[in-house]
Amino acid sequence: MLYVAAMATAASLPAAVPASIGDSEFDRDTAVTRREPGVYDTELSAGWTIISAVNGGYLLAVIGRALADALPHADPFTISAHYLTASSPGPAVIRTDVVRAGRSLSTGQASLFQYDEEGREIERIRVLASYGDLDALPDDVRTTAKPPVIPPLDQCFGAQDAPDHRPVPGSSAIADRLFLKLDPATLGWALGQPSGKGEMRAWFGLADGRDADPLSLLLAVDALPPTAFEMGLSGWVPTVELTVHVRHRPAPGPLRVAITTRNLAGGFLEEDAEVWDSEDRLVAQSRQLARARLS
Amino acid sequence: MLYVAAMATAASLPAAVPASIGDSEFDRDTAVTRREPGVYDTELSAGWTIISAVNGGYLLAVIGRALADALPHADPFTISAHYLTASSPGPAVIRTDVVRAGRSLSTGQASLFQYDEEGREIERIRVLASYGDLDALPDDVRTTAKPPVIPPLDQCFGAQDAPDHRPVPGSSAIADRLFLKLDPATLGWALGQPSGKGEMRAWFGLADGRDADPLSLLLAVDALPPTAFEMGLSGWVPTVELTVHVRHRPAPGPLRVAITTRNLAGGFLEEDAEVWDSEDRLVAQSRQLARARLS
Repeated sequence: MLYVAAMATAASLPAAVPASIGDSEFDRDTAVTRREPGVYDTELSAGWTIISAVNGGYLLAVIGRALADALPHADPFTISAHYLTASSPGPAVIRTDVVRAGRSLSTGQASLFQYDEEGREIERIRVLASYGDLDALPDDVRTTAKPPVIPPLDQCFGAQDAPDHRPVPGSSAIADRLFLKLDPATLGWALGQPSGKGEMRAWFGLADGRDADPLSLLLAVDALPPTAFEMGLSGWVPTVELTVHVRHRPAPGPLRVAITTRNLAGGFLEEDAEVWDSEDRLVAQSRQLARARLS
Repeated sequence: MLYVAAMATAASLPAAVPASIGDSEFDRDTAVTRREPGVYDTELSAGWTIISAVNGGYLLAVIGRALADALPHADPFTISAHYLTASSPGPAVIRTDVVRAGRSLSTGQASLFQYDEEGREIERIRVLASYGDLDALPDDVRTTAKPPVIPPLDQCFGAQDAPDHRPVPGSSAIADRLFLKLDPATLGWALGQPSGKGEMRAWFGLADGRDADPLSLLLAVDALPPTAFEMGLSGWVPTVELTVHVRHRPAPGPLRVAITTRNLAGGFLEEDAEVWDSEDRLVAQSRQLARARLS
């Protein structure tokens, strides 16, 4: 989850000449290099950190890219990650395993490791995922879901608009990579007046103007401030497990992300995210279980 | 998912002398025997099949029991299963792996295999899970979720009440194991008049009167007829991936299960389940991605 620092520093305007899919900050920072079949080296970028933690959605996108190479299908349909230990910027290796290669779906497993002082591998995240081909799906839609109601972009707020600019110690580098404009109805926490509702809504894009694709949706579901802030909590809300369903290839243009928490209890909460594209398609759904400090 | 046959045959009344946790049909049919550290033999019971398929929630409970033995913690907090090939009643082996053993949470992996004609192992399901101790959680609740509104038990319908009793070919053995009473508002499909809404609600218990525990919650989330029926679809709705969060140990008494589908598109749908106990606690949440044939 993204923390208050991101809001306190910046949400850049889209670039004048937008970056393209395949040639952008996000693509460079999620690049993986095949060392041998199924094993990928990568460099976790310091550009997607908040305080000292690497954003969990960014990490999932890096692993998702390795799996897209390892599996016979390119698009994550459903991907589940269990977060084991905290990742740091720097080198990492992703080890993948093809569990089953089917005609329309294939299933893979991946683990991301970093290195301790003696160079031994420490596992950070373990992932199970089923991949397919989004472009091969039929066009039928019988959704009853409605897009979230978010005011127009110019009535939403990024960090540069914040009336109460409180810098937070540590890095908030990810804020410079995102174009994030929050619905003022879910911004009470930033004014010291949380609504008490477990809701967070925002317009979401990448700061360099790169359009969304299935991999960047894995980032989008985990990039807003935690709903816990609007429920009156503060501090760390570490993810235990995050599952994302990618349901459609996103159209160009900004995304709308709505996150909801219904149950904060026993020191844990769920966060359900919906991501909608500019053509009013529900392109991704996610749920995570996270720890919350009840204060 | 459970299919129409279950509704068409039976939902037994609770037993006069209820079975107890540890000594019940569910416990016997989910029992695992340790062959060697981390490896468990089991016999998938024909008692939890529908047509020829073994119910996915039952399978998850069997695997969940093996993980409870293999890990230092006993309760599944979040468990994600990817379904690879269809299981059949008969012998199976579960191979587990302790990914990380932490103080309050531990993470494990498991695969369930059955055997082909030459005795080779075929993987049916792969699972990642984080386990903890539900009884060690603080009692704080700040949930905003409300229990589903379901009419009293005697105004809900089991199969024996169905006005239009249509037997379906094949086994519907699971119906005899469950105490399932559906909200009439979500029963239109059984009368040939689906509501068009992706909703299914029911009272849920085990036919022998055994109370719920964290393992049986893994069954409860996947035991109702599919929401797709109320959306006007019929036929198979196979699960691709199912993730369950167990949030509290359930109190004795019947459970209420509410399932919702918001997005049926591209030949897939999600099913979100909430399970509430007799003390109005939200004890489990789940989401699955399933295939749907759009007709």
